[in-house]
Amino acid sequence: MTGATGPGDPPGEFELIARHFAPLAGPGAFGLADDAATLDVPAGQSLVVTKDMLLEGVHFFRHDAPASIAHKALAVNLSDLAAKGAKPLGFLLGFGRTRAQDEAWCAGFASGLARLAKASGCALLGGDTVNAAALTLSVTAFGTVPQGRMVQRQGGEPGDAVYVSGTIGDAALGLALRIAPDVAWGKALTEAQRAFLFDRYLHPQARLALAPALLAHASGAMDVSDGLVGDGDKLASRLGGRFEIGDVPLSPAARAALLAEPALIETILTGGDDYEILGAVAPQEAQAFEQAAREAGVPVTRIGQLGEAGGVRLWCNPDGSERAFTRRSYAHSF
Amino acid sequence: MTGATGPGDPPGEFELIARHFAPLAGPGAFGLADDAATLDVPAGQSLVVTKDMLLEGVHFFRHDAPASIAHKALAVNLSDLAAKGAKPLGFLLGFGRTRAQDEAWCAGFASGLARLAKASGCALLGGDTVNAAALTLSVTAFGTVPQGRMVQRQGGEPGDAVYVSGTIGDAALGLALRIAPDVAWGKALTEAQRAFLFDRYLHPQARLALAPALLAHASGAMDVSDGLVGDGDKLASRLGGRFEIGDVPLSPAARAALLAEPALIETILTGGDDYEILGAVAPQEAQAFEQAAREAGVPVTRIGQLGEAGGVRLWCNPDGSERAFTRRSYAHSF
Repeated sequence: MTGATGPGDPPGEFELIARHFAPLAGPGAFGLADDAATLDVPAGQSLVVTKDMLLEGVHFFRHDAPASIAHKALAVNLSDLAAKGAKPLGFLLGFGRTRAQDEAWCAGFASGLARLAKASGCALLGGDTVNAAALTLSVTAFGTVPQGRMVQRQGGEPGDAVYVSGTIGDAALGLALRIAPDVAWGKALTEAQRAFLFDRYLHPQARLALAPALLAHASGAMDVSDGLVGDGDKLASRLGGRFEIGDVPLSPAARAALLAEPALIETILTGGDDYEILGAVAPQEAQAFEQAAREAGVPVTRIGQLGEAGGVRLWCNPDGSERAFTRRSYAHSF
Repeated sequence: MTGATGPGDPPGEFELIARHFAPLAGPGAFGLADDAATLDVPAGQSLVVTKDMLLEGVHFFRHDAPASIAHKALAVNLSDLAAKGAKPLGFLLGFGRTRAQDEAWCAGFASGLARLAKASGCALLGGDTVNAAALTLSVTAFGTVPQGRMVQRQGGEPGDAVYVSGTIGDAALGLALRIAPDVAWGKALTEAQRAFLFDRYLHPQARLALAPALLAHASGAMDVSDGLVGDGDKLASRLGGRFEIGDVPLSPAARAALLAEPALIETILTGGDDYEILGAVAPQEAQAFEQAAREAGVPVTRIGQLGEAGGVRLWCNPDGSERAFTRRSYAHSF
C-alpha cells in the first residue's frame, strides 16, 4: 500500500497507513511497506478473485460512519466470494480519499475494516492510496475453492430449483427511508423495524456460512446486489426460468411496509444491496442443500426454477399472471 | 465484470462490456459474465498481487486519448510486477466511468488495453463498472514468482549497490511541458525531444524484461513512480544510503532541458511517473546483474549504495556536498 504526498495534502499519508492500516496486514503483505504482496495458494486450490468499487453518493452517503463504509466495502466483496463457494483469504484496498478523510475518519474506517476482516479471516494485503475529489473505495478480495470448483453464475441446468437466502428488499427500503424519512409507509413501522432496515442498508452481511453448502450442492450462484429481478435475470440468462413473487422471502419489517404501501413490491424486488445469495440447485440435490443451509444457520427459500435453453424469464404474481417491471435493476445512485 | 444500469445512464453497460472488454478475457474469466474469476497458480509459484488507482486530473488528463489512458493504467501495475521479479498473469479492472466514456471512448480504451495486455501476457480477468463523477480506474494485477522469492522493497543489505534502469525525469518534464508548452526551456528542445518527453509521460513502459535479472540478482527493488528521491528514500529507509546525483541517467532530451534550465534538476529527481526500476544488488552479484540486464536489453546505471542499519539517506552533488530538496516526492496532481 503506497501513497504520494505533496504540498497540498493533509500531512502524514504514510503515517496514517502505518498507524491505522498496517495492524490489519496479513502474511505476505510485508507490513504494507511494499508495492505488492504475495499470496500462496494451497495445493489443490484455485484462487477466486473479485473486485467491487464503491463511491460516495452512489454506494454510501458521504456522512455515513466511516466504520460502516469500511464494513460495506469489504462485505460486498466477501458476498461475491460466498456466492462462489469460496473461503476468504485476503484483500487489497484502493483508497481514493478526499480532505474529509482525516486522521479521526481513518481511525474509524480502519476499526470497521479490522472487525470484519478478522471475523471473516480475510487479512489486508496491500493497496493504493490516492487523492480524489470524492471518496472512492476499490476492494479486490481473494478466496479459495477446491481446484476448478468455483460456483459459476451460469452453471445452472434446465429444471434446477432456484433458491435465495435470507430476506429480500430490506436494504432498498432502508435506503428509501433514509432519503424520505417522513414517507407515509414509514410511519407504519416500529422503531425497531426502521432500525432493522437501516442496518440492512448500512451493514450488509456476507453469507460466508453458506459457501460450503453452495460448493457441495449448487450448480450456479451469485449474490443479489443489483436487485432480485435483474440478478435473477442474470442467473437465468442462459436457460430462462420462472420466479414466483409470492415465494420471495420478506422480513417482518418489509411485510409491514408492503402492507402499508403495496406499490413497494417494486422497490423490494428491484432495489439493490440485498447481498443475499441466489443459487440454482439440481432437484436431486435440493434436500441436501436445504439441510446443509439449515446446519449453517442460513435460511434459504425456493423461489423458482430454471427453464430450458433459450427460454424466457418470467416473474409471476401469486395468481399466475406475469409481472412487468418499470426497471429490473437498481441504478445504485441517489 | 459487472455493472449496474439505471434510468439516467448511457445505455448498454452490459453490451459495452460484452463488445469491448469480453474479447480481452483470459482463462478463468468466464467471459466476464461472472462476479468473480479464478486463477490457478502453478505448483511451486507464489502469486504476486498489486493495485494502483488512476484518477482523471491526477494521473492523466481528461482529454488524453483513451488508448493512452488504458495503457498507463495497466502499465503502472505491470511496472510493480516487474520490480518484484514477477511474470504477469492477469488483471482486474475497476472502471468508474462518467458520461464522457461513451461507446467510441470505450472502444479506444479497450484497444489500448488489449494491445498492452497481449504484449505482456496479462489477460483481463474481470472487474467492476460503476458510474462516477470523474473517470476512475483501479487495476489489480497478478503475477507469479518462484515460491517465496518476491523481490521485496526492503530486502537490501548493507553495502549493496543501488541501480536504476533507463533514464529518470523524462515523464515529469513531459508533464511540465504539457502544463506550460511555452516555457523558455522547452524552446531549447527539438520537436523530437519534446515528443519523446510527452510519450514518456503518456506511455510508461513497464520494465518486464528486467524481472528475471532482478529475481536472480537483486536483494531489493521497487519501481520509481513517485520520484527518484522519494522512492530512493523508501528503498533505503531501513539502512540509509548515499546516492550520487551526478550518476543519475538522463536522456538527451532531459540533458538539453537541464542545460537550458539548471533548476529543472529538482523536477527530474523528484517528479513522478518514471516507472523505471530501482534495485539493490549485493557487490558480489553486481557484475552478473549488469550482464543479465544487458542481455535483457535494459540499460541499468549504478547510482548509489545502501548504508548500515539506521543510517541516513544522502543525495550528493558531484562535488560531494549534500543536496536538499524542497519536496522529495511528487504530489501526483496538476
